[in-house]
Amino acid sequence: MSASPFSFELLATDGDARAGIFHTPHGDIPTPIFAPVGTQATVKAVTPAQLGEIGASLVLSNTYHLFLRPGADLVAEMGGLHKFMNWPNPILTDSGGYQVFSLAKMRKIDADGVTFKSHIDGSTRRLTPEISIEIQEKLGADIIMTFDECAPPEDRAYSELAMQRTHAWAERCLMAHRRSDQALFGIVQGGAFVDLRRQSAATISSMDFPGYAIGGLSVGETKAEMAEMIEVVNAILPADKPRYLMGVGAPEDLVNGIQRGIDIFDCVLPTRLARHQAAMTHLGRLNLLNAAFAHDARPIEEGCTCYTCRNFTRAYLRHLVVAKEMLAATLVSIHNLFFLLELTRQARLAIQAGRYQQFAEEWLAGLMDAAE
Amino acid sequence: MSASPFSFELLATDGDARAGIFHTPHGDIPTPIFAPVGTQATVKAVTPAQLGEIGASLVLSNTYHLFLRPGADLVAEMGGLHKFMNWPNPILTDSGGYQVFSLAKMRKIDADGVTFKSHIDGSTRRLTPEISIEIQEKLGADIIMTFDECAPPEDRAYSELAMQRTHAWAERCLMAHRRSDQALFGIVQGGAFVDLRRQSAATISSMDFPGYAIGGLSVGETKAEMAEMIEVVNAILPADKPRYLMGVGAPEDLVNGIQRGIDIFDCVLPTRLARHQAAMTHLGRLNLLNAAFAHDARPIEEGCTCYTCRNFTRAYLRHLVVAKEMLAATLVSIHNLFFLLELTRQARLAIQAGRYQQFAEEWLAGLMDAAE
Repeated sequence: MSASPFSFELLATDGDARAGIFHTPHGDIPTPIFAPVGTQATVKAVTPAQLGEIGASLVLSNTYHLFLRPGADLVAEMGGLHKFMNWPNPILTDSGGYQVFSLAKMRKIDADGVTFKSHIDGSTRRLTPEISIEIQEKLGADIIMTFDECAPPEDRAYSELAMQRTHAWAERCLMAHRRSDQALFGIVQGGAFVDLRRQSAATISSMDFPGYAIGGLSVGETKAEMAEMIEVVNAILPADKPRYLMGVGAPEDLVNGIQRGIDIFDCVLPTRLARHQAAMTHLGRLNLLNAAFAHDARPIEEGCTCYTCRNFTRAYLRHLVVAKEMLAATLVSIHNLFFLLELTRQARLAIQAGRYQQFAEEWLAGLMDAAE
Repeated sequence: MSASPFSFELLATDGDARAGIFHTPHGDIPTPIFAPVGTQATVKAVTPAQLGEIGASLVLSNTYHLFLRPGADLVAEMGGLHKFMNWPNPILTDSGGYQVFSLAKMRKIDADGVTFKSHIDGSTRRLTPEISIEIQEKLGADIIMTFDECAPPEDRAYSELAMQRTHAWAERCLMAHRRSDQALFGIVQGGAFVDLRRQSAATISSMDFPGYAIGGLSVGETKAEMAEMIEVVNAILPADKPRYLMGVGAPEDLVNGIQRGIDIFDCVLPTRLARHQAAMTHLGRLNLLNAAFAHDARPIEEGCTCYTCRNFTRAYLRHLVVAKEMLAATLVSIHNLFFLLELTRQARLAIQAGRYQQFAEEWLAGLMDAAE
């Protein structure tokens, strides 16, 4: 029997913060890391070559979207997702669970799975743990996820039911999963309830996953609740496996999550903000449509070494936004993605140097200054 | 007195076809050359870095658009167009003449210039030869154009009047132009009328311009008329100056224009087609929305060495088009621009090798095969 191509190497810890490497068949993922989202097999407005220049490692894509369009069989026929979207480095696919609950119409949930209508063409579709794994095996990402149910964070009865279904579905995903070149991560649910989160973390930890995710956060709970849930869960998850906080991408959430032992983040935030002309900086967001930038010869952020900041002024970016030029979305996406990846790179260095606490305080102070 | 930073070096001729170098303050332009159009100080959906990889040399931008938005003073304040749009290589601006007649509302033409309403905000604006030169001097392109009037090709009375105004305005542009680091090109008009084109070529040639353009073609006349007009005009224009055929970018028009002694072309066609999912190939255009491409694992064109063809299948590009992803416009624009630049590069090699006639025949045969 050959050894798993996956392993998590912890290089340093600093308090609860961790610096490591997750080894995958498509290369090493340095952690902590932010993963850009390529929902429909493309990080919107950015080429893979540009993603490479930004220093992206892991890229996420969405099973729900690819299932509906162009279909997993087509992606498999084209050699899998890496080849299809031309991303030779690690890819993670989610299970479709979250999108079924946030995007699809006319959901009908049963113990076995979910029947829903496609938000694209209204066709009736079905996802179960087994179908989700089958699709994800066809897509061929390095990291794949168990099929889960994400409940509204404050509804205790629903949170408990969804958590129990998530646990049952996790078992079935483990059983269904066959490809040894894919790491299947389990997902902890439980809403904003400490006891449910503890129960879910214990149950999911008891199953032998090569990595663990925390789902159902950044969906309406407070920042304090998010921090508490991460602490409660990470106290239980095994320390020798990577921990992935799903769908979280606000800079302060990255800083706080890393501080509490999170290794992997993903979010559409940086690219979605970019398409709405908002640039991320250490002092908060800039709305590039603002008339104040019309004559501003500075880059988005002084000292930033991304392609956009090395070459373009705020005045030029504002002109592109006003003139409705597509290049605006590309250039601001490049900056915002670089900004979050640079945050995780700097955090990693700080952890390795044993000064993460200071790094986090400086970061959060900068962000708080801007919010005044 | 210092020597002009501009000179046209003829390296080889083959029949009427010419291979040369136009030296400018921002670098050498190898001719024949196709110039991508960056109407609003951006080649739509393509970064300057990508333009560089495509091998672009000269890039065109539109005075009319930049005059209206963001304004020439802002561009000058930001260090000029090269710095503003981050294109360190040669730039050409047109005079605004063509756009005033094709885009602006409520035009009122008099002997002195044109008053019109902006197509963006309805504001009343005015362009005269002197104002056009003033704007173009503020923008700071390497090659700038005289203010001209482009008439419908078949209206003889209007063509004659517009031509006479164009001649008078050319004189005034010459008088108004001050910057020695900009080459002001004269424009030949005269519609689809041989005698007017001869008269215009002789008149404009008699003024001392460092380069000459043929305007008012590819606006509705037949291909035979276009070819005839180019022949008539180029027989009169001085052989030791570059010749620029304005607004022409169909591959067969490039092949035919080069054969008749044209050195420079520009057109929005490759990027506009790309935004409408049409890819240019040696065998004609591909509509990437076509269902036939859904499972097509080939690149847009076998053997093409552009970034898009080296890395992406027709199936993936069709998926991006169907999913309305911005990356489709970027990837197809890269291919289409590369395609026309490669055409001019191959034409240049053929001229230098004395086999342009064969090159042109092979090209046109390929195009005609596809039209069957």
